[in-house]
Amino acid sequence: MIQNYSVWHDHTPAYTEVLGGRLGTTVKVRLKTLSKPETVQLLLPISGEINELKARAIPAVDGEGHWFEADLPLHQYRTPYGWHLAFHNDSYYFTQAGITRVRRGYRDFFQYLAEHTVPEWVFKSCFYQIFVDRFRNGNTEADVRDNEYLYPAPETVEVHNRVDPERAKRFVPKPVMKAEWGTPPDRKGDVHAHYGGDLEGITEAIPYLNDLGVNALWLTPIFESPSNHKYDTKDYRAVDPHFGGRRAFDEMLAKAHMSGIKIILDGVFNHTGDLHEMFQKALYNPTIPERTLFTWHGSDTPTYEAFFGVPTLPKVDYSSELAFQEFIDGPNSVVRYWLRAGIDGWRLDVAQMIGRKGTDEGNLEVHRRLKKAAREENPQAFIFGERFFDAEHALDGRGEDAVMNYHGFGLPIMEWLAQANGRFEPVQARAEEVVDLMWDAYQALPPQVALSQVNLIDSHDVARSLYRLGNDKNKLRVALSLLYTYVGVPCMFYGTEIGLTQFEEGTMPFCRVTMPWDEKEWDLDLLAFTRKLIELRKSHIALQQGSLRFLLGSNDTIAYERSYTHASGKVDRVVVAASNQLTPRIISLDLPSGTYRNAITGEEVNPERVQLSGSLVLVAE
Amino acid sequence: MIQNYSVWHDHTPAYTEVLGGRLGTTVKVRLKTLSKPETVQLLLPISGEINELKARAIPAVDGEGHWFEADLPLHQYRTPYGWHLAFHNDSYYFTQAGITRVRRGYRDFFQYLAEHTVPEWVFKSCFYQIFVDRFRNGNTEADVRDNEYLYPAPETVEVHNRVDPERAKRFVPKPVMKAEWGTPPDRKGDVHAHYGGDLEGITEAIPYLNDLGVNALWLTPIFESPSNHKYDTKDYRAVDPHFGGRRAFDEMLAKAHMSGIKIILDGVFNHTGDLHEMFQKALYNPTIPERTLFTWHGSDTPTYEAFFGVPTLPKVDYSSELAFQEFIDGPNSVVRYWLRAGIDGWRLDVAQMIGRKGTDEGNLEVHRRLKKAAREENPQAFIFGERFFDAEHALDGRGEDAVMNYHGFGLPIMEWLAQANGRFEPVQARAEEVVDLMWDAYQALPPQVALSQVNLIDSHDVARSLYRLGNDKNKLRVALSLLYTYVGVPCMFYGTEIGLTQFEEGTMPFCRVTMPWDEKEWDLDLLAFTRKLIELRKSHIALQQGSLRFLLGSNDTIAYERSYTHASGKVDRVVVAASNQLTPRIISLDLPSGTYRNAITGEEVNPERVQLSGSLVLVAE
Repeated sequence: MIQNYSVWHDHTPAYTEVLGGRLGTTVKVRLKTLSKPETVQLLLPISGEINELKARAIPAVDGEGHWFEADLPLHQYRTPYGWHLAFHNDSYYFTQAGITRVRRGYRDFFQYLAEHTVPEWVFKSCFYQIFVDRFRNGNTEADVRDNEYLYPAPETVEVHNRVDPERAKRFVPKPVMKAEWGTPPDRKGDVHAHYGGDLEGITEAIPYLNDLGVNALWLTPIFESPSNHKYDTKDYRAVDPHFGGRRAFDEMLAKAHMSGIKIILDGVFNHTGDLHEMFQKALYNPTIPERTLFTWHGSDTPTYEAFFGVPTLPKVDYSSELAFQEFIDGPNSVVRYWLRAGIDGWRLDVAQMIGRKGTDEGNLEVHRRLKKAAREENPQAFIFGERFFDAEHALDGRGEDAVMNYHGFGLPIMEWLAQANGRFEPVQARAEEVVDLMWDAYQALPPQVALSQVNLIDSHDVARSLYRLGNDKNKLRVALSLLYTYVGVPCMFYGTEIGLTQFEEGTMPFCRVTMPWDEKEWDLDLLAFTRKLIELRKSHIALQQGSLRFLLGSNDTIAYERSYTHASGKVDRVVVAASNQLTPRIISLDLPSGTYRNAITGEEVNPERVQLSGSLVLVAE
Repeated sequence: MIQNYSVWHDHTPAYTEVLGGRLGTTVKVRLKTLSKPETVQLLLPISGEINELKARAIPAVDGEGHWFEADLPLHQYRTPYGWHLAFHNDSYYFTQAGITRVRRGYRDFFQYLAEHTVPEWVFKSCFYQIFVDRFRNGNTEADVRDNEYLYPAPETVEVHNRVDPERAKRFVPKPVMKAEWGTPPDRKGDVHAHYGGDLEGITEAIPYLNDLGVNALWLTPIFESPSNHKYDTKDYRAVDPHFGGRRAFDEMLAKAHMSGIKIILDGVFNHTGDLHEMFQKALYNPTIPERTLFTWHGSDTPTYEAFFGVPTLPKVDYSSELAFQEFIDGPNSVVRYWLRAGIDGWRLDVAQMIGRKGTDEGNLEVHRRLKKAAREENPQAFIFGERFFDAEHALDGRGEDAVMNYHGFGLPIMEWLAQANGRFEPVQARAEEVVDLMWDAYQALPPQVALSQVNLIDSHDVARSLYRLGNDKNKLRVALSLLYTYVGVPCMFYGTEIGLTQFEEGTMPFCRVTMPWDEKEWDLDLLAFTRKLIELRKSHIALQQGSLRFLLGSNDTIAYERSYTHASGKVDRVVVAASNQLTPRIISLDLPSGTYRNAITGEEVNPERVQLSGSLVLVAE
């Protein structure tokens, strides 16, 4: 939806006194309008009726237009609210659907989420995702050796991003191997090829990361596990010895923290690895309590519920209270254990699958208990889930803080830029519908949740962004410009900043290439550009916590403004325009008057006549 | 959203084998596309993942285009699903959001609602709402006499449609009065003026109703109560003696049923009247079980929770199991009692308010238990709620079958036609946003629920449609054309068909005028027009159960098509165009080829060049 400023309200301090207020209190909400209305009302559904609360005229906070204020009583966790403006010859509603004469459904109302706050550091963070085995080898002595042990593998794996459940049943033991840094990952080495990356390597890279400017790392799993990806945990309380063990972890954590870098670990609580002690016990002894941790079948192969039928990944059954005790919120649960060890939060693998009896039943309950336990251990912990699809129902502030924003950012943006989907099939996605979808996904969420969504343009599960964009670095710059300016927290996959691509078409394992450490292999221009974007993101509260207004969504071009209006009325404003065509074009942006500068070059730009080639970020002075 | 037929799927038999299938079964769903895709997949979220089920090509059901079929497994009550079509050089999703290259959120997916069916008679019905005291006096002997008894009234009532809670506290006893048929209702007589309408009158009017063609009556409350509207029930098991008592009821019900007319009673289960025996007991004896039926305050006036603070309307507390027993689903509950007496369903007053402790907490649970009990008594019972606002959350087939569709039909349509809201304040509503809102409200609901929504253009709670339209009968014809053709069950307020209007601006009590029985006071042209619409509605399955496709929503004009594609591929098709400007205009409708006739005049019409003055209904031959 393309909006203008004739009427405005958002979640920033001039318009909303505070986010996440306590139940039972009231919060001042304000509206600005350029035309003078006769009356303004706040619409507030209580017990099924829409109450109409008169808003009072107040002095213009920013010295402009007409301002009104009302008290929003926080009587429930999630309060939808809207505005109604009556004029002499017209009257209308103002909601997230903009100005409408007919009243929209509650899903289009503004929403206030009480009792939920996101740790402040999250908004200030630029995340960097590290697939540990491929990032940096800091200690070659601990590397996996060829034939060190056997690990079951499916005979063939053929489908994109999914293990074919039929084929997955035929697993055969296969020796692990040591792969040489820089060689292409391939299907054969999918889970067996170990490149030697480790936590010591990450510790060594801290100066590099500091220089780049990222200040939060999400590490793919580091706990003891036989695979290279370690999503099949053998022991949740031990750091894998090939990654350096606990000593390397403690050192990395301490040095990262000293350097201002937060550490998020990857928690796989939907399934364990089949080597997990409790599973091994349960498998051979049907009468012990651990048996309740999994879902058992009579005759099928495997004889237990498993992640996509893969026998090495038995699914945890959260009808078992023991599962909660062990993983989630028992006094010594895994969730608590690592927060006590000092980590800053959890990324939750396949968060949407977790549940009872091989299904997602009870999913939200698990996440609510997990979040509560996590915050008890560390009130500043950040919890985000992997939910590949629309996660609106789960994002009410009581479970995960946020999810990986494939749905509302990564998928539409990359599909539009690549004109192809994640399977490299052609898709003629247009700017109009990309903007529509992004707005729909954004406005469905409470503001503090939308602001903490983890935006990404790729990850260890999908194709590398550069490769997906036909190795066109100009297109990658467009993607990065959007990543670092859109609503939510940016998360970049390691190596993107230096132009890391992949050798072969596909998703995983091809995207899990090793990070080169010879600077001659780096694109230094791209690195400098990325660094600037990171710096920009960290220096503008508009990008960290600002509201969203789409300016354009047509002719292969999208543009939006992020603005944060301080309680004083002062506005921090950043504007972004991007095209999926790199041919230069002139666009006109409908912006408040002021001086705008190109955030990368510092040049002054007239927003009414902007020369756009790819992307452009403008900062209002 | 304006759609075309390049890709199509809907809930009618050619595209969806059956509605409301049993959990655990599968249902065949089909898609038609004009361009030939390489593959078609059914997208089905299960346990948080979107499963992709390959659809098989099948012979074209209607001999046209390319058809695909897939099996939809019913694994949960409400199953969202979508389609994905891949072509050589493009691929896209098909959902309720139409063709999109990016995947929409689940709210835009199609949805299949298992286990819920709407009684077949509902779809075939044209409802007629009777405010009993004002429809027809069949027995003057039982009329309320002047000063027969006292009834408390607020000293003043000043706000529209709402009793001001502050003023409501000052209630004073006032004598009832007998009002003369035909005299204007006024504020003074708001609840005290009794005009003498009764059930004998309704029985007498059955030939009139049969002639009009309506075949289901919703009567405002008929149970013993001191007010003229009877929303303050004294005895839920007794018919008010002034309405003729039980004898008159039994006769009316029998004769209505013999004439093919269903009877829906109005159940007020959010609050009782203060004269209700259980409330009187509870009021004076804090220790008896009846005390739990209400919510008591320490000191406020009244000392109990009441509907908008009106002391004659104490609110029932559904934390009390006794409340369920008495009203909802006890073995002899009120709900069961009248269904056993032979009624065909319930309209539930302020359904959205019902709940625990003076709030709407537990609202859905009350409605689920009520619906279950009702269907146990009469598997063909129809239950619909008064929910003035967006009721999406309540319409999952497990509570009420449907609600009074103010939100998705009555409010937007009347606001657009009147260019004013229900308070007679000017509103410049445009066709674009009316269509947007109507589509949004429609697509949010499972199909069988959307088809049973009770559409209305007015009621006893809002201004009469004719009055609201400036007494312009041509505009009323437009409203009626929409009422009888839109998705949902039409419900007309008594007297609309003969041009009944009101004497004074406002909502209630002014809309509650008496029905004239002298034909000289009738607009016979309007009556004939309405009769034709009713006949049309009853003779077209497209109007009763067809899908919806908007054709236009711009330039003061909206147009839509209803179509029902039989399993054979044969289509029943009705098309409606309407403008809120009565000046003639030429419009062009994008319709499948065929012969179209004006449903009222029988003339053949070329849909590419239609002369529109007000409204037009076309039937495809």
